[in-house]
Amino acid sequence: MASSSSAVQAEAFPDGTTEFVPLRGKKYDLRKPHITDQPITVNNWYQHVNWLNTTFIIFIPMLGVVASYWVPMQLKTVIFSIAYYYYAGLGITAGYHRLWAHTSYKATTPLKIFLAAAGAAAVEGSARWWSRDHRAHHRYTDTEKDPYSVRKGLLYSHIGWMVMKQNPRRIGRTDITDLNEDPVVVWQHRHYLKSVIAMALVVPTLFCGLMWGDFLGGFIYGGILRIFFIQQATFCVNSLAHWLGDQPFDDRNSPRDHVITAFVTLGEGYHNFHHEFPSDFRNAIEWWQYDPTKWFIWICKQVGLAYDLKKFPHNEIEKGRLQQIQKKLDQKRATLDWGIPLENLPVVSWDDFVSESKNGKALVAVAGVIHDVTNFISEHPGGKALISAAVGKDATAIFNGGVYLHSNAAHNLLSTMRVGVLRGGCEVEIWKRAQSENKDVASIND
Amino acid sequence: MASSSSAVQAEAFPDGTTEFVPLRGKKYDLRKPHITDQPITVNNWYQHVNWLNTTFIIFIPMLGVVASYWVPMQLKTVIFSIAYYYYAGLGITAGYHRLWAHTSYKATTPLKIFLAAAGAAAVEGSARWWSRDHRAHHRYTDTEKDPYSVRKGLLYSHIGWMVMKQNPRRIGRTDITDLNEDPVVVWQHRHYLKSVIAMALVVPTLFCGLMWGDFLGGFIYGGILRIFFIQQATFCVNSLAHWLGDQPFDDRNSPRDHVITAFVTLGEGYHNFHHEFPSDFRNAIEWWQYDPTKWFIWICKQVGLAYDLKKFPHNEIEKGRLQQIQKKLDQKRATLDWGIPLENLPVVSWDDFVSESKNGKALVAVAGVIHDVTNFISEHPGGKALISAAVGKDATAIFNGGVYLHSNAAHNLLSTMRVGVLRGGCEVEIWKRAQSENKDVASIND
Ligand code: HEM
Ligand code: HEM
Ligand SMILES: [Fe+2]
Ligand SMILES: [Fe+2]
Ligand SMILES: [Fe+2]
Ligand SMILES: [Fe+2]
Repeated sequence: MASSSSAVQAEAFPDGTTEFVPLRGKKYDLRKPHITDQPITVNNWYQHVNWLNTTFIIFIPMLGVVASYWVPMQLKTVIFSIAYYYYAGLGITAGYHRLWAHTSYKATTPLKIFLAAAGAAAVEGSARWWSRDHRAHHRYTDTEKDPYSVRKGLLYSHIGWMVMKQNPRRIGRTDITDLNEDPVVVWQHRHYLKSVIAMALVVPTLFCGLMWGDFLGGFIYGGILRIFFIQQATFCVNSLAHWLGDQPFDDRNSPRDHVITAFVTLGEGYHNFHHEFPSDFRNAIEWWQYDPTKWFIWICKQVGLAYDLKKFPHNEIEKGRLQQIQKKLDQKRATLDWGIPLENLPVVSWDDFVSESKNGKALVAVAGVIHDVTNFISEHPGGKALISAAVGKDATAIFNGGVYLHSNAAHNLLSTMRVGVLRGGCEVEIWKRAQSENKDVASIND
Repeated sequence: MASSSSAVQAEAFPDGTTEFVPLRGKKYDLRKPHITDQPITVNNWYQHVNWLNTTFIIFIPMLGVVASYWVPMQLKTVIFSIAYYYYAGLGITAGYHRLWAHTSYKATTPLKIFLAAAGAAAVEGSARWWSRDHRAHHRYTDTEKDPYSVRKGLLYSHIGWMVMKQNPRRIGRTDITDLNEDPVVVWQHRHYLKSVIAMALVVPTLFCGLMWGDFLGGFIYGGILRIFFIQQATFCVNSLAHWLGDQPFDDRNSPRDHVITAFVTLGEGYHNFHHEFPSDFRNAIEWWQYDPTKWFIWICKQVGLAYDLKKFPHNEIEKGRLQQIQKKLDQKRATLDWGIPLENLPVVSWDDFVSESKNGKALVAVAGVIHDVTNFISEHPGGKALISAAVGKDATAIFNGGVYLHSNAAHNLLSTMRVGVLRGGCEVEIWKRAQSENKDVASIND
């Protein structure tokens, strides 16, 4: 049998992944010890900080905020900055994320260039680097190999993983052969720094400058501050989306659905859905949910720029939703008291039941089970008289519609009053009899 | 066995109910034919109308609206009318409904008198008559014996049952011996007309007149119009509460929970809960839900006017909620496609599986089941290479974490690709083998 050897097989299995090889800059030697192997101390903490990233995502934005104090805000520049913010955002969500990391649809070359340029304007690394980390994030969610695991804290998943140095060996390996074959991705990766300077800073500065003379405003608002906002917003997918909201599809890992996250991230907030169905070009599946990235992709399809939009089959999505509800329900069920199981109840003969009912205990038989209603008689919503009249009798029919068709609630309440099972009264009895046959044969009288 | 005779027993069973006997006015002869036995026609429609009720709940309020045109609205009178509206409302909700119809708590005589007087101010019949109808409504909900069944239309359940004559034999019998023993209830029933005139009209007129000289305003706003509003509001319990909202506890009958109904009816809007747990003095069980009637009863308890407030056990309430969710889930489950059941799949030997995999079909075995992934290879989110490498192999371990721990969604998707069961691959096979032993013994080779 093949399955017996599959554990061994799995190790030897070609899993298609490779270490990440940057196509530019100095190569690091994976065998050398890395700073992250040492604990952070008062003396070495600055070696743990990734100063380049810290400069780009913290220091420069802070300088921008300070500088903006002296730079008057022009309405046209503000409007341009907001529009450019959405453009850069779509570069990350529709481009880096849904197109390159997840190949959830296919794009024509013009759309790819448009998105690669937009992605550069967001200053979050190259599409190639970003997608590789993101694939590792999906494949190893919440584990040590997840580049931005929320298990290490909300702040870490938001920004910590960028401002602190990371051990390149730690991050899970993934397969990016498809990206290496995509000329737009490779070009953007090779010319990343040039692309960023052009798209993130030069374009907004020149646009605002040449169109309405606001070079400085274009630089500060359309460049620096816009970069800051789009970075923080998209970082929320790694932090907020793994921390705030519901888990309608699977609660084994951290991803969550929340409309606030969706608003902040151009629709990437239905993240529990997304982690469960990453190949779906949608993040929100209901028409009333906010997913502008989906709308953008859909429009691109209408005008012929995108095609092969992938949807996970509706039936399978609903199955996932149902299984998760069922799981929650089973957990809830286990916390409730469902009464003594029938098989743990003593077996009582009909005559014993009747005679016990005459000696002070108010016993009522329903569906082969004997119930002690002594303390309930005075509380019975149908009055004392009716329930008292059933004491010592088989009330199956009158309880179930003969006199009154009791609610589900009444059936539940009844089950808490179980004290015995009638010999011969229902199926369970058949099994019991076999067991006790020797002990009390004399009392079998029906 | 006693249970075999229980159907007969049930008929003979003393069910404690009696026909309703009005304690005042002319007695009707139940054996005489009733107007409702004849269909409504152009000639007899006016005989079907209950003109007395119509006068009180439609004509007089209309006159009041017209009259109010000439009666200036004084702020004090308006405030008084609103306060008096709530007082009369509590007479119905805390008095008629939760105290007398459902005995969900016990009241001291002063509180009973306070509530009986308030109930008279609402002009909705005596507590005795109202409670008897209401018990029939609970016991025979949605059936022909329900005095205000919503199955006869929303308008009927709201007001139709009052403005049209009803056959007294139609309404289900109930047991009101407890009410007949309550002196406050009996007194109010015997002196109903006097009580109504005093509480609904004289008190508001005199109060506003003697306190700030607004006799007419007191009569129109504090009397006539207030009566109209309180009537319409409480009628909503019979109409709106059986028509609008959710059914978290039981959906076999019409009662529903809705916050709007709760707002209109001083908290009687959690009507699905109420029909399931009528003996509970609460209608809303969450602290944040609107149930001022419950708050009123609770305060009465704190000051010693009410006692023995009944609550249905929390565990049983949660059981009911859970069972209803489970029921909905099972209905949903039945609408989804769960793949071909394992027992309907052909049994395939390991060698046949391997050789078929070499002849163009991409078959992958997972957990003893053979899957045809031919059309899925190019769509596999983990890439073509990995899944192709598993063709013709047992991928149980690599699918379940060996290479990648697939999501629940992936398992669901996998189940749609089932085409066969591996001989000896899993439990179901053991049974199958016995059946097919004779047909293909030769191919058993493991
Ligand atoms: C043996 C244990 C019993 C339990 C635990 C029980 C429980 C209840 C409960 C919880 C209700 C409230 C309404 C509902 O939930 O459906 C109710 C109502 C009622 N029960 Fe029982 N019951 C029992 C026995 C009986 C028997 C033996 C009779 C009749 C012979 C009876 C007749 C009624 C009637 C007529 C009502 C309706 C009261 C009304 O809505 O006016 N019950 N019962
Ligand atoms: C046999 C039928 C298979 C089906 C139906 C299937 C389905 C899927 C699905 C739906 C995903 C998306 C992520 C998820 O839902 O967990 C996925 C991802 C993945 N699959 Fe499979 N798979 C199959 C076979 C395999 C095999 C045999 C391998 C490995 C040898 C494999 C390796 C992976 C990997 C590594 C990913 C992660 C992709 C990423 O997130 O970067 N799959 N698969
Ligand atoms: Fe994520
Ligand atoms: Fe993703
Ligand atoms: Fe009702
Ligand atoms: Fe009720």
